[in-house]
Amino acid sequence: MKASNSIKKNAGFVNKFLKKELGGNPKQLYDAASHLIIHGGKRLRPFLVLKSCQLLDGKQSDAIAAASAVEMIHNFTLVHDDIMDNDEMRHGVPTTHKKFDMPLAILAGDVLYSKAYHTISTKSKLSANYVSQLVSKLSKACVEICEGQVYDIKFAENKRIPTKKEYIKMIEKKTAVLFEVSCAMGAICAKKKQKDVKNLSSFGRNLGIAFQITDDLIGIVGDSKITKKPVGNDIREGKKSLPIILAINKAKGKNRRLITQVFGNAKTSKHKISLAVNVIRSLGIEEEVKNTALKYAQKAERSLGSYTGSAKNEMVSLLDFVIKRRL
Amino acid sequence: MKASNSIKKNAGFVNKFLKKELGGNPKQLYDAASHLIIHGGKRLRPFLVLKSCQLLDGKQSDAIAAASAVEMIHNFTLVHDDIMDNDEMRHGVPTTHKKFDMPLAILAGDVLYSKAYHTISTKSKLSANYVSQLVSKLSKACVEICEGQVYDIKFAENKRIPTKKEYIKMIEKKTAVLFEVSCAMGAICAKKKQKDVKNLSSFGRNLGIAFQITDDLIGIVGDSKITKKPVGNDIREGKKSLPIILAINKAKGKNRRLITQVFGNAKTSKHKISLAVNVIRSLGIEEEVKNTALKYAQKAERSLGSYTGSAKNEMVSLLDFVIKRRL
Repeated sequence: MKASNSIKKNAGFVNKFLKKELGGNPKQLYDAASHLIIHGGKRLRPFLVLKSCQLLDGKQSDAIAAASAVEMIHNFTLVHDDIMDNDEMRHGVPTTHKKFDMPLAILAGDVLYSKAYHTISTKSKLSANYVSQLVSKLSKACVEICEGQVYDIKFAENKRIPTKKEYIKMIEKKTAVLFEVSCAMGAICAKKKQKDVKNLSSFGRNLGIAFQITDDLIGIVGDSKITKKPVGNDIREGKKSLPIILAINKAKGKNRRLITQVFGNAKTSKHKISLAVNVIRSLGIEEEVKNTALKYAQKAERSLGSYTGSAKNEMVSLLDFVIKRRL
Repeated sequence: MKASNSIKKNAGFVNKFLKKELGGNPKQLYDAASHLIIHGGKRLRPFLVLKSCQLLDGKQSDAIAAASAVEMIHNFTLVHDDIMDNDEMRHGVPTTHKKFDMPLAILAGDVLYSKAYHTISTKSKLSANYVSQLVSKLSKACVEICEGQVYDIKFAENKRIPTKKEYIKMIEKKTAVLFEVSCAMGAICAKKKQKDVKNLSSFGRNLGIAFQITDDLIGIVGDSKITKKPVGNDIREGKKSLPIILAINKAKGKNRRLITQVFGNAKTSKHKISLAVNVIRSLGIEEEVKNTALKYAQKAERSLGSYTGSAKNEMVSLLDFVIKRRL
């Protein structure tokens, strides 16, 4: 099955579960909590929970609560991130704090977060031993996500361009840990011990890094029809992502001056941004970034070396899907 | 031992544990997360966890993780509430979003919340069965706190004055559930079954209601030297609390006009607020509100009817302390 079809099939199952968990009163609160979930998302993280469980011969019914919980956590981070960045649109609709208001958006995030733990601890068919492991892994991941978000904010505030190593550390915490914990939770739901949890964690973490690197490349050279954002959007916004870090290190003379001039400058013309994107392409940055993403994807694939079966094939296809998304 | 001394003694134990859990990098994040905790709070909720556990012959070392977790949760709600209300001061220091900034305050709340679950699931010496029960109870309480906060916001937005029943329902969710779950968690940490958990939950819930009713009375007739807020502050802010609900229902003619005129009117003079407070006193509202709080305190005490010992005495003293705080 193609990765995108396989993801879609699982999404339906997860959506049904999520809809049931996110009903209730006051309606306003649950409408706000469901807003982004209803309007988009591929359910990649729940897919990873379910497939990791299947790969290890676990039952899907043992993993659905954890799969839904991780999607709640993902959306909780999106809702709060959008407030912090004061972003206006996501998934083609107004962000939660724009559609409702800031207090309700904070609470929508908080209730999603609370429901995630409630779902894991009450809707899972697993024994307490596994529930406790899930909570421990998930809460550690959430601590790291908060830390990663602060590192990201510090990148933006600091005039200095971070190193590639600092960038990887930041996206590891901010993005990759949730992919990592999704796979780890799948292994726990399959009632597996340390070795399998470790292998699956490694798959998820490296997939997550490859995912974010690719996302950041799309933010620079992506087709605006697909990204639904202006060309070179992340250059204008001054996002210190890998393509920019490499470009600023590599560019010289006139090219370097152009990039530093338009970087983070909200008033830059479309034309100048296009020129900067062309310079970045001409420096071979696109290939270098793609190769970095590929390296992490290969590392992820190696983590699954000792497994076989259809779930493995679907997970490897997902790797391809993630790093070959249309730019 | 006097309630206040007994609370202080336990607070030191909890503070030490909290300090250890809330260190780390990025420093900025953990400074923000610790800000309110360092600057105040009586650690009432951890006290309830520890004493409930002791009452049921449990070990303090089995309850300290849950006790600290509930204080993290309490502070997470304070940090986020202060953002929502755009409050400037708490515990005599700037609120977290004023001292740091809004994004960092959102993250400080989120990391406190994450650490709470991480502490319970990794720092507790209890078996997985009890950890899973703690997570289930705590997450359910947090869902209800979010719901309660939305009801509170709706009270403020709605022109209608809520009924006494609606007010009690709101404070039950917004405030009392955290007291309830503190006591329930103490019982779980003592490895007790359903009946004891139920009795202790009832004690906590009714104590919490009595606590909030008293707090709301202090907000109207409290001594400004003690409350550190202007006299009649909640009248000016238009807080639809029990004293106001009763006063508006009871006042007639000129008195009613005065109360409705100053209620929620930021520009009202100190003199007029004083007049309104005097009217509220003259209507016998203070006594009626105190009696309502007392009724819930008595209900709480009855929940402990079948227990004896020093922990019970301390918990009953706490009831007295809560409803007899200096107005």
